[in-house]
Amino acid sequence: MMRFAIIGTSSISEKFIDALKSTKSCEAYALLSRDKNKGKRFVEKFEIEKLYTNIEEMLKDKDIQAVYIASPNGKHFEQAKLSLEAGKNVICEKPIVPTVKEFDILKEIAIKNKVVLMEAMRPTTNPNFKLIKENLYKIGAIRQVMLKYCQYSSKYDLLKVGEVRNIFDKNMSGGALYDIGVYPLYFTLAMFGEPKEYIGSNYLLSSGVDGCGTILLKYSDKIGVISYSKITDEKTPSEIIGEDGSIVINKVSAVKGITIKYRDGREEKIEIDTYENDMRYEIEEFVKIIEEGKVESTLNSFTTSRKCVEIMETLANR
Amino acid sequence: MMRFAIIGTSSISEKFIDALKSTKSCEAYALLSRDKNKGKRFVEKFEIEKLYTNIEEMLKDKDIQAVYIASPNGKHFEQAKLSLEAGKNVICEKPIVPTVKEFDILKEIAIKNKVVLMEAMRPTTNPNFKLIKENLYKIGAIRQVMLKYCQYSSKYDLLKVGEVRNIFDKNMSGGALYDIGVYPLYFTLAMFGEPKEYIGSNYLLSSGVDGCGTILLKYSDKIGVISYSKITDEKTPSEIIGEDGSIVINKVSAVKGITIKYRDGREEKIEIDTYENDMRYEIEEFVKIIEEGKVESTLNSFTTSRKCVEIMETLANR
Repeated sequence: MMRFAIIGTSSISEKFIDALKSTKSCEAYALLSRDKNKGKRFVEKFEIEKLYTNIEEMLKDKDIQAVYIASPNGKHFEQAKLSLEAGKNVICEKPIVPTVKEFDILKEIAIKNKVVLMEAMRPTTNPNFKLIKENLYKIGAIRQVMLKYCQYSSKYDLLKVGEVRNIFDKNMSGGALYDIGVYPLYFTLAMFGEPKEYIGSNYLLSSGVDGCGTILLKYSDKIGVISYSKITDEKTPSEIIGEDGSIVINKVSAVKGITIKYRDGREEKIEIDTYENDMRYEIEEFVKIIEEGKVESTLNSFTTSRKCVEIMETLANR
Repeated sequence: MMRFAIIGTSSISEKFIDALKSTKSCEAYALLSRDKNKGKRFVEKFEIEKLYTNIEEMLKDKDIQAVYIASPNGKHFEQAKLSLEAGKNVICEKPIVPTVKEFDILKEIAIKNKVVLMEAMRPTTNPNFKLIKENLYKIGAIRQVMLKYCQYSSKYDLLKVGEVRNIFDKNMSGGALYDIGVYPLYFTLAMFGEPKEYIGSNYLLSSGVDGCGTILLKYSDKIGVISYSKITDEKTPSEIIGEDGSIVINKVSAVKGITIKYRDGREEKIEIDTYENDMRYEIEEFVKIIEEGKVESTLNSFTTSRKCVEIMETLANR
């Protein structure tokens, strides 16, 4: 049984714990919460053995093999660093850290201490991601990649009346790119590798973060267009476009609704049934690399995470 | 009866003549063709009174009030210049000229000689363009404009075996942006005005012209994304995206298939029946400004054409 410590008590932690339980081989063993009462209610609800309010103390616990970090984005770096230094394997929610400098520090510690560091990016660990990759050859030479994630946030209504929540708070690394644009961006980088060049444009909200934006990824043989928004909804799907047809994807973040539309009009649905809770895939990948004694996932690699951090650091909120 | 001279004998000229006839108030009176035999067959087929093989000679004909230019792109400037200098009203096929310098020369002559200079851009003269404009308020603040025109060209198959046709010939101002990208670009500029800034990326073919590309138009309050291609097909529609919903457009170049999709799930089809031959709209607009004694169309204005030329000159084929 692999024992996890969970940092953070929001709904994403709940979903992670649910996925952990479904694996049968993993356990949510400890919780870190600064608020003792909140922590007590949480550990009781999810039958977690240990409750800690201090991270240094928690990291001394030899029964913990892995730490899942789902605290606010601004806390990721410090918590991941301490965990890796304590010899724990770390799976950290997206976006992993706001700067390349911080990413490189974490990576170095992981390599030195021979522990896993992995960004908890779901789409790329979903088997339908691999399925898309395997079907790319069917649409000929890829020329345009147009992926999007646009979802109107109710927090935007609050912002309009002057209430700034975390997700639109610049000090919390908020904004559309960091929060959801990261999905189509990471997807593209993991599927097609690093672009030669990238440029972008966004619309900044009153709180100083981007409400929506677009990134152009320039490859030598294709163009990537990443669109993201927390102030509009998407009404048309994403597309990977080749000379012989397109792979249309209804929802990039869940890798769902995938159809190949050939130039000659033929259509082919490709998709396999996935776990209802798709966080199980990233957990299985994480556990697999721990067991193999590696420090890095090939699905959510250092290279992809680092490039994603670099692009976001360059283009977000400016 | 307003008498037109037609320059060029391709299918676009045939369509223009068909539209001219449908107006009842206009006539295809003269044809200019360097190839006398080709010209003869053409004037006979379309019952055109005069055939000229020399433009200077043709422009001396006092019965000609207007010149329609549908020659290869590389000929537009010289032919438009001579026509305007001869005091003729000019309607010139898109893309009007390849450089801003040439555009400014034509504009000056038109103003000086009090004759009309108008780019023959169809979508903006289509009443459904105005209808979209009038319905924009329904989708709230516009944040993203994602328009595309992607159509696989059979000439691309020829290029692959080494045969370079006009449309992929750099010397003929060929390429995807000049040929069809101009439609969504012009549409956006006419609908939303000049952007603060623009950047782009494209994929260059062996012949040195762009096979496909994307332009980012940066506005202070929104982002425009123009995608175009002659080496892939489009499988998803264009969209104008606001905070309260989207206006989805199936075919930007014909302004067809228009649905408002509200954020709350409601849908509203907006579209009026149009002339089967939609070139009639640009002819009606052109005739109207001649009759009003103006030199410029408000639908296809100097400002829009000039900005479109500038952006294409900056971004095409490099």
